[in-house]
Amino acid sequence: MHVAARRPHHDGSPLYVSHADPRLGDDVAVRLRVPDGYGPVARVLVRSNPDHEPAWVEAVRDGAADGWEWWTATIRVANPRHGYRFHLVLADGRVEVLSQGGLSDVDALDAQDFALVAGNPPPSWMDDTVLYQIFPDRFARSEGADARATPQWAIPARWDEPLDPVHPGRGHQFYGGDLDGAAARLDHLVDLGVTALYHTPVFPAESNHRYDASRFDAVDPFLGGDAAYLRLIEAAHARGIRVIGDLTTNHSGAAHEWFRAAFGDPDAPEGEFYYFLDDAHTRYETWLDAATLPKFDWNSAELRRRFIEGVDSVVARWLRPPFSIDGWRIDVANMTGRLGDEDLNTEVRRTLRRTMIEVSPDTLLLAESTNDAATDLQGDAWHGGMTYPAFTRGVWAWLGDPLRIPHLGADGELTDDMWFFGLPTGMPRYDAHRFVAQYERFSSQIPWRVQRGTMSALDTHDTARFATYAAPGAVPVAVGLSMTLPGIPVVYAGDEFGLEAVDGEMSRTPLPWDRIDEPDIAARIALYHDLIGLRRAHPVLATGGLRWIHVDEGAVVFARESADETVLVLATRGGVDAVLPAPLVVGAEHARALYGDAELTAAADGSVRIAAAGTAFAAWSLPGVTAPAPSAPGVHAPDAPA
Amino acid sequence: MHVAARRPHHDGSPLYVSHADPRLGDDVAVRLRVPDGYGPVARVLVRSNPDHEPAWVEAVRDGAADGWEWWTATIRVANPRHGYRFHLVLADGRVEVLSQGGLSDVDALDAQDFALVAGNPPPSWMDDTVLYQIFPDRFARSEGADARATPQWAIPARWDEPLDPVHPGRGHQFYGGDLDGAAARLDHLVDLGVTALYHTPVFPAESNHRYDASRFDAVDPFLGGDAAYLRLIEAAHARGIRVIGDLTTNHSGAAHEWFRAAFGDPDAPEGEFYYFLDDAHTRYETWLDAATLPKFDWNSAELRRRFIEGVDSVVARWLRPPFSIDGWRIDVANMTGRLGDEDLNTEVRRTLRRTMIEVSPDTLLLAESTNDAATDLQGDAWHGGMTYPAFTRGVWAWLGDPLRIPHLGADGELTDDMWFFGLPTGMPRYDAHRFVAQYERFSSQIPWRVQRGTMSALDTHDTARFATYAAPGAVPVAVGLSMTLPGIPVVYAGDEFGLEAVDGEMSRTPLPWDRIDEPDIAARIALYHDLIGLRRAHPVLATGGLRWIHVDEGAVVFARESADETVLVLATRGGVDAVLPAPLVVGAEHARALYGDAELTAAADGSVRIAAAGTAFAAWSLPGVTAPAPSAPGVHAPDAPA
Repeated sequence: MHVAARRPHHDGSPLYVSHADPRLGDDVAVRLRVPDGYGPVARVLVRSNPDHEPAWVEAVRDGAADGWEWWTATIRVANPRHGYRFHLVLADGRVEVLSQGGLSDVDALDAQDFALVAGNPPPSWMDDTVLYQIFPDRFARSEGADARATPQWAIPARWDEPLDPVHPGRGHQFYGGDLDGAAARLDHLVDLGVTALYHTPVFPAESNHRYDASRFDAVDPFLGGDAAYLRLIEAAHARGIRVIGDLTTNHSGAAHEWFRAAFGDPDAPEGEFYYFLDDAHTRYETWLDAATLPKFDWNSAELRRRFIEGVDSVVARWLRPPFSIDGWRIDVANMTGRLGDEDLNTEVRRTLRRTMIEVSPDTLLLAESTNDAATDLQGDAWHGGMTYPAFTRGVWAWLGDPLRIPHLGADGELTDDMWFFGLPTGMPRYDAHRFVAQYERFSSQIPWRVQRGTMSALDTHDTARFATYAAPGAVPVAVGLSMTLPGIPVVYAGDEFGLEAVDGEMSRTPLPWDRIDEPDIAARIALYHDLIGLRRAHPVLATGGLRWIHVDEGAVVFARESADETVLVLATRGGVDAVLPAPLVVGAEHARALYGDAELTAAADGSVRIAAAGTAFAAWSLPGVTAPAPSAPGVHAPDAPA
Repeated sequence: MHVAARRPHHDGSPLYVSHADPRLGDDVAVRLRVPDGYGPVARVLVRSNPDHEPAWVEAVRDGAADGWEWWTATIRVANPRHGYRFHLVLADGRVEVLSQGGLSDVDALDAQDFALVAGNPPPSWMDDTVLYQIFPDRFARSEGADARATPQWAIPARWDEPLDPVHPGRGHQFYGGDLDGAAARLDHLVDLGVTALYHTPVFPAESNHRYDASRFDAVDPFLGGDAAYLRLIEAAHARGIRVIGDLTTNHSGAAHEWFRAAFGDPDAPEGEFYYFLDDAHTRYETWLDAATLPKFDWNSAELRRRFIEGVDSVVARWLRPPFSIDGWRIDVANMTGRLGDEDLNTEVRRTLRRTMIEVSPDTLLLAESTNDAATDLQGDAWHGGMTYPAFTRGVWAWLGDPLRIPHLGADGELTDDMWFFGLPTGMPRYDAHRFVAQYERFSSQIPWRVQRGTMSALDTHDTARFATYAAPGAVPVAVGLSMTLPGIPVVYAGDEFGLEAVDGEMSRTPLPWDRIDEPDIAARIALYHDLIGLRRAHPVLATGGLRWIHVDEGAVVFARESADETVLVLATRGGVDAVLPAPLVVGAEHARALYGDAELTAAADGSVRIAAAGTAFAAWSLPGVTAPAPSAPGVHAPDAPA
């Protein structure tokens, strides 16, 4: 159980790992801390698995501080993903194993080892990032939009007209939001405190979501074209806001110039870009069963050259001046290159990232992979994921209101509106224990560095909005968790207006800019502003260690920790009154409240009482962690000879 | 907890899966059974993950029999490894998830899904197999050996001379066992009841273990050469005994003809077969730090051609007539093709298996991968593993005598004799709960079909012998488990003589054939004979489902089940007295004792009492499982058009 457990701890943060971005051959010092009360530890061995064969080194006891004993070992990075774990030999002869899978009295799975990642370091600014996601047709509309024609496929809608979630409105309702409109609202982003704008696709297409691109080398004229995109990017950069684009590598639209060239013409060079099923090239593989979305065949070297490989590719085009965007979010990354007995995903993602490194290395690459993304999120290409199981689904299951979320009951039909984040059963009901269990399980196979780059979204353009189903008082708790757990926080445009939506179609709401000063909306915006501010004022919330301190049915308490600062976080649904025994929280007598209404009381014996009367989110600043000097510092390998 | 839990059950056996060896595109019916007492289940959804995107089908309730409710769903096989799991919607709204990772109240990891494997079916005879492993220099010596010279590198030893575990004796002590000697002892194998002979390498080399081959296209003349090997194979086949060879794909010996051609000659075509570290081709990568074992570089197309690819390769040569061996065990399969940032393992193993299929498809391919082998054991090439964590280490940790197994204490040095199965801490001490937890954890990521092909060894030529450290009375329990749990049972030659050995060097014991009639040895041979006979008389022990029924600190009870028969198995260290409530054991009133001294008593309420006074292994035959007809049968896809 997690209740106030005195457990040994390690994670990938600087307190415990000397080099977050090692190179192959580096000696990295890894540290373990063991609390008083866990039981005397006689020896600590660290197991690595270079080239899939175990190798062991013994850790040295460095000494103790504040009720914690520290051990250090040096491991040499052998592979791009270098897994390792700690085997603790207790004084009574028992052996316990600590890995990302947790503390165990039987042996641990290699896939759940802690893991260093060598190569492909994330951009220098990743840890400072708070994302703001927009859906261009719905975010903001410039005056220039009024002068533009409407696309042929579109069903025009006024900005204040209700969404129509049924075909043909679904996909074709066209509000005419555009990029100059977005540029005009950048100060809203600055005011919120976000640092990067992530926009869903801007390429010409035949739908309002534009995931069915008809070309990749131009911005949709109905959004203002290349010139407007450039104006948006320059205006964002001028405000210190980065811009992340959205690219679909799994498929194009059926209207794509490549597909049009290929369709029905077996001699077209683009024929090899898709999986045609007949000699006449009229039947083809699609994304799921959507005939408008033909699936790419990544066996084609020419497709790679045009799309993802080298300075003339689509991927490079938008990273290069004049556009100079700051990264890509890749749509349907999970299915890319995968079909039947073929799996080219690893090649495609690595090639894509190599191109980014060649053209603009200080950029971010995120993969949409909305379910268990562990096989792909190993750091070789994607810096992180847009993925739901660890954080998003856990938050919904714990802090959502189960009485209002549709569930598959005994008599219900298996219909689309059951689908919450890929779960047709409806969102399950978790207590806080299960929230933590789910978080730990789905984090267990992802290297710490990639966890830092993974999006902590409450919702997106593909999901219902969390506020719609939040338990009373739970929105600040959910937003607070997104800002204080590892990963990149994301605000989906409209959440800060308190918008509600029952599914991913209805969540593509035009933003009600004219209501921005209404008290409820202003209060919600202030909530986001304050919690984003908390995140940004305390870098430990991005890069510090994560230690779960207390979990009961209704509450979690965890610490984000560095040598400079500890931020102690409480999240509770329904309230908490818990005593955390020493030495779980150190320095509580110096605690400074950062956020929320909750009590923290330090007792003379080193224990700490935390109490809150109802659903609450709170955070305190405490002193950084004091540790004895490590017995081994870890060293970078000398550069390879030129 | 596992204690007499009424839990839903599924595994990969025929009771639950309509097609064990499906093809891509097949519709496979998968079934779930839910016991009375678990709680009413309203709906069952089955989640697959085709091309890494979840897809769901709803299961149909088929009806109930013997206190169990059955559900069936049909899934279409989309990928070579097709994972799936069950989401149970309970009548009270809770959702529980059943996967190979167990039953969970939070969501499950994809890596722990149940998994179908399409393609590369195992040989027709795999499930009938009981292996007998020999180490040729130590198994048996023919009279012809007396006439042969001794290799230059050898330190000759008489058959009854003690092993010398210290260099240079280690590796070079030469007892002169040979293949005609082995052929002369085949009737011993027939008497034991084993069905296949697995021999460590027979290629010329410069050590007694011959893992440092100097060529792959001839049998060592000191073993009798090609002719003797052919005599052994033909004599074995005449007795219905198959022969499995041993090949090292990670490295050759430094004396290998390829390495000798390459060493010091940068122009030699074989230079690309190895990882040379200097221009002069005198420094090179090795297996671990053994200069005599240069590591292969599988980037070389020519190496692939000579060694593993096509009918003229080494791999094919011995599968083709006249030799016609029945399979390969691949040494150091885990490290093969892996070095630093390179990982060619998947390509190498698939190429190797393609060659086997081309030349002789009804053959077995096993991978040595002694630790967590899950990433490699997905069925695409290896049919199973020689691996220790799930079975071997669990048996040792539970049934070994911890007081006699060396452990790393507070003051000990980290020396070689601590190393039990890759664990320098010494073997941990498990109760039966931990034995099952370890077994389930390390089986959780391996498809059922591959579990069936994985070796259940108590020890090998690389480990101490189990009998050396067995708790009193535990040898029959351990041997019994190896014969009754899924996987291929293995007898390491000498275990049936009761030989003991403290490590893998000392376990390479010349077999004391002259003592075979001594009462202790005869009794041990009878034990093996009887338990192998149990395995072979009850095919359900190879192919039936595995359901854990009762686990307490000192005992496990499990069932191997098919429609034809159930074998109920008890293994206990120290005794058991347990009542298994209905409907966990069905038909106990018809139980027929197959082995061991333990009591089984069926009560009128359907509960079953199992009792044994001390350490014991027992098995009973019960009727097969009755299930209502499935709502969907599953169908093979039509053959692809020619």
